[in-house]
Amino acid sequence: MAETRLRILLVGASGTLGRAIAAELSPRHDLIRAGRNGADLKFDFTDPGGMAKALSGLGPLDAVVSAAGHVKFAPLGAFEAAPLAESGYGIGLNDKLMGQVNLALAARACLKEGGSITLTSGILAEQPIQAGTSASMVNGAIEAFVRAAAIELPRGMRINAVSPNVLQESMGDYGPFFRGFEAVPAARAALAYSRSVEGRQTGQVYKVF
Amino acid sequence: MAETRLRILLVGASGTLGRAIAAELSPRHDLIRAGRNGADLKFDFTDPGGMAKALSGLGPLDAVVSAAGHVKFAPLGAFEAAPLAESGYGIGLNDKLMGQVNLALAARACLKEGGSITLTSGILAEQPIQAGTSASMVNGAIEAFVRAAAIELPRGMRINAVSPNVLQESMGDYGPFFRGFEAVPAARAALAYSRSVEGRQTGQVYKVF
Repeated sequence: MAETRLRILLVGASGTLGRAIAAELSPRHDLIRAGRNGADLKFDFTDPGGMAKALSGLGPLDAVVSAAGHVKFAPLGAFEAAPLAESGYGIGLNDKLMGQVNLALAARACLKEGGSITLTSGILAEQPIQAGTSASMVNGAIEAFVRAAAIELPRGMRINAVSPNVLQESMGDYGPFFRGFEAVPAARAALAYSRSVEGRQTGQVYKVF
Repeated sequence: MAETRLRILLVGASGTLGRAIAAELSPRHDLIRAGRNGADLKFDFTDPGGMAKALSGLGPLDAVVSAAGHVKFAPLGAFEAAPLAESGYGIGLNDKLMGQVNLALAARACLKEGGSITLTSGILAEQPIQAGTSASMVNGAIEAFVRAAAIELPRGMRINAVSPNVLQESMGDYGPFFRGFEAVPAARAALAYSRSVEGRQTGQVYKVF
């Protein structure tokens, strides 16, 4: 069976996970690498207007993949009741959550019929760690959003999330927070993105743990 | 076994669910009813400073229960990429999510050792409906936050969420969005709040569906 060559926008392409996704997908598809320091396309998750404008210039896409988003890691004791704009939780809600949600909303304008959106959540949605309340909150929000958006996207578009365990490549930085977690190679996590893009399911959370 | 009479702050006490929780808990405990039109204590979820100040004047509490929070119901097609402050998703993130999270954060200052916090998510975290992407996102965020906060709260404090199905009492308003859902009486949902307050578990999501 001859495979179709897909045109894929990859956001967060220069990160550890993004590079592994590019390594998995680029041999058989055409990638546009985007991000804060994107090789092909620069945009900032926290600037939805700029992001939508950048996307509208790309022409038709088969898939949009996000491996981007920041959250604040801090002990619960460091968070105080505050309006969202001043809250420590605002970073994750503005960046990893609404950055990816806005990417998905903007992607509708350039995705072909049946095209796919793949977002990134993470194991902390289910398995909490010390100092991870913001990450857990954001990951849980992304997964529920994906399940809900899947039943409303137009023209057969699909949306899934990948929820990776901590990456082996990140254990140097994050190891002390993830003792006992079975870290996965980024290349293994990247397979789940391929499954979302090249499969036909929608509304799924692919757990890589 | 003689039961201990608990001092419980109930936020959202005047709503359909709040009234049922009050009916379940008030015969054997002392309730302080709070909310936008709170009988005992007025405060607004979107004013965390005022909320924290109001709580600090209450003295020691055994439990804080929230049955409050608004989200925007609208078709996915009505949401556009926008900064959080201007996004349709901002209503739910500011009110039902951060209102409840801020309540939990503020509650730490007045809860006794082993005291409990009980928040409200909802079935849309798992089972999406048309026009429900914001509600799903917010409910998923609350459930993951609860799991994560549970392992970090000080002095044996506990935190759980209750995830009710649509209430029978609300089917007049919401029925067309929830066809085929097995609506539950508010009094049945109220049992789960009793289980969280009067039981000993933490980090749980009590599903009433």
